[in-house]
Amino acid sequence: MLPEWVYQECPGVSIFHRDAALARQAELTKPTGALGRLEHLAIELAGLQQTDRPRAERAPIIVFAGDHGIVAQGVSAYPQEVTIAMMSNFASGGAAISVLARELGLSLEIVDAGTLAEQPVPGVVTDKPRQGSRDFSKEAALELGEVAFAFGCGKRAIARAASAEPDLLILGDMGIGNTTTSAAVAAALLGIRAEQVTGNGTGIDADSRARKAHLIDAALARHDLTRPGTSAERILCAVGGLETAAITGAIIAAAQRRLPILIDGFIVSVAALTAVHLNPSCRPFLLSSHQSAEQGHRLVLEALNVQPLFNLDLRLGEGSGAALALPILRLACALHNGMATFAQASIPNRS
Amino acid sequence: MLPEWVYQECPGVSIFHRDAALARQAELTKPTGALGRLEHLAIELAGLQQTDRPRAERAPIIVFAGDHGIVAQGVSAYPQEVTIAMMSNFASGGAAISVLARELGLSLEIVDAGTLAEQPVPGVVTDKPRQGSRDFSKEAALELGEVAFAFGCGKRAIARAASAEPDLLILGDMGIGNTTTSAAVAAALLGIRAEQVTGNGTGIDADSRARKAHLIDAALARHDLTRPGTSAERILCAVGGLETAAITGAIIAAAQRRLPILIDGFIVSVAALTAVHLNPSCRPFLLSSHQSAEQGHRLVLEALNVQPLFNLDLRLGEGSGAALALPILRLACALHNGMATFAQASIPNRS
Repeated sequence: MLPEWVYQECPGVSIFHRDAALARQAELTKPTGALGRLEHLAIELAGLQQTDRPRAERAPIIVFAGDHGIVAQGVSAYPQEVTIAMMSNFASGGAAISVLARELGLSLEIVDAGTLAEQPVPGVVTDKPRQGSRDFSKEAALELGEVAFAFGCGKRAIARAASAEPDLLILGDMGIGNTTTSAAVAAALLGIRAEQVTGNGTGIDADSRARKAHLIDAALARHDLTRPGTSAERILCAVGGLETAAITGAIIAAAQRRLPILIDGFIVSVAALTAVHLNPSCRPFLLSSHQSAEQGHRLVLEALNVQPLFNLDLRLGEGSGAALALPILRLACALHNGMATFAQASIPNRS
Repeated sequence: MLPEWVYQECPGVSIFHRDAALARQAELTKPTGALGRLEHLAIELAGLQQTDRPRAERAPIIVFAGDHGIVAQGVSAYPQEVTIAMMSNFASGGAAISVLARELGLSLEIVDAGTLAEQPVPGVVTDKPRQGSRDFSKEAALELGEVAFAFGCGKRAIARAASAEPDLLILGDMGIGNTTTSAAVAAALLGIRAEQVTGNGTGIDADSRARKAHLIDAALARHDLTRPGTSAERILCAVGGLETAAITGAIIAAAQRRLPILIDGFIVSVAALTAVHLNPSCRPFLLSSHQSAEQGHRLVLEALNVQPLFNLDLRLGEGSGAALALPILRLACALHNGMATFAQASIPNRS
């Protein structure tokens, strides 16, 4: 078992505020339902935030980075040292998520949750139990204590972010090899063959992808993860990654503080699915952003029962898809809070 | 024929700038293609704007309003006086598009291109040849001179907007009955039955919708618009509307000034399709935003050969869907212009 806090109940949705928001939407100067999913987003946020005026202004971004022993098997198009180099790029403002954070006025924290870096990287919070996970094609990726440490890393990051009283959170990932780890976790959680959730990652070809799926299936068999009902804890130890475990912990810790999480692409979505398996009460706090080009994301979103806002063929991670969705949430809130009612504008409603 | 300027060639895309943008995307610190459609948006804008640094900051919104004689046949869920009341709501800041303009820092101009208003509405530019169109179930909606005036109205609005040196434009519509008018125009342009492009508008039921489609088909037959090759000019006179003709003129005038237009929902898309029929050289300047819930929008977007960025079940008009898409364009530009290259960040590229 993981630490006790992981399993503690998250607060519930405020039905009172959700219903009040629903009633307000019907009074705004537009045909009922004409703002489509934006109406639902505002109503959902009102219930989660327990407020008449839902907000999506303050949305700190936390990107967790980690390295993966499975990279030794040649599963990635990029060399392993890119993980550490990209952490520096995040911190110095050159990466996609850095640009998005700047444009959207969001804070960006980078956490080394388990990279191979031997020294702290400037501008990065180091909070890891070890350097990288083990090669899960040969042995268990992590010990239970290491997974527990990574969950604590996620929880600590949420505690730091919470001090700024955020409206919601954006979590992101960086880790060469982490689509392989996440595909393994997803296949085990969903009880399906790796083929269905194994994609091209940063850009491998069809042969490499087939090999990646085969490696995962072999590992799932080796670690005895193919039986229905295998626990998420066992799956994480056998084939998980440190940054993905940290994201899972962060999601649960955020929901326990009543903070919605705007989920990103494949990696964060698999972490969210793991979080729901461990603690189903966090489910309502998961807000959908996009559907990525990574094979398997669709299946994971379906399992989470969330419908993406858009599909722009993104496959970058870093929290970039969630950041791109934030303006839609912000505008949904602005419309909900700022539009006139039919009565205020003296406009006749339906004939 | 409409005035000569309508048919004048629009400038072309800069292949040089488009190719330079394409090359830059491959150097940015992300797997090639990992930003999906955002990469294409930045590349497309670079070519249209003839620049190394595409921008989507200044995007004035112009909403054209008009009334429609066909409303006498009971085609709308809302009474006709809503058109004028909503113009006031736009101007006083209570409508959806007013809130979106404010949040996005965009100017908003409202143009009465043909409503029934007998007096100028405060905060609204009045520029119309007559009050409302005629009931096309009984007679031609507009005379050629009235359509030409409406095109001029659109062109004058673009001239006013151009003085602020915009990066692109957002055009919107307001007019009780205008989904009926636009469905008639779309059915005639596409040579299909009204059923395929007739939707629920602001919220009529299935019976009313069937009646609306029947009215349109009868009018298309009455005005002899069902023969292949019927000109867009004839279609506009027979079943068009004043605000939609103004939008068509505005699109052509904008493209002639090398200004991209972020197209909105069904009404603006049908105006765009009309513009392409009249002057095919405006086509590259049409940028897609969303696919609405209005029946027929999908077919019109396909005919325009543009792929929507998202489908959020919007069906409001006013330019609201285009405004909601603007942050995605802005972020696409910010990423293109602001990310570090692999060389700048000293990151190894693909192995």
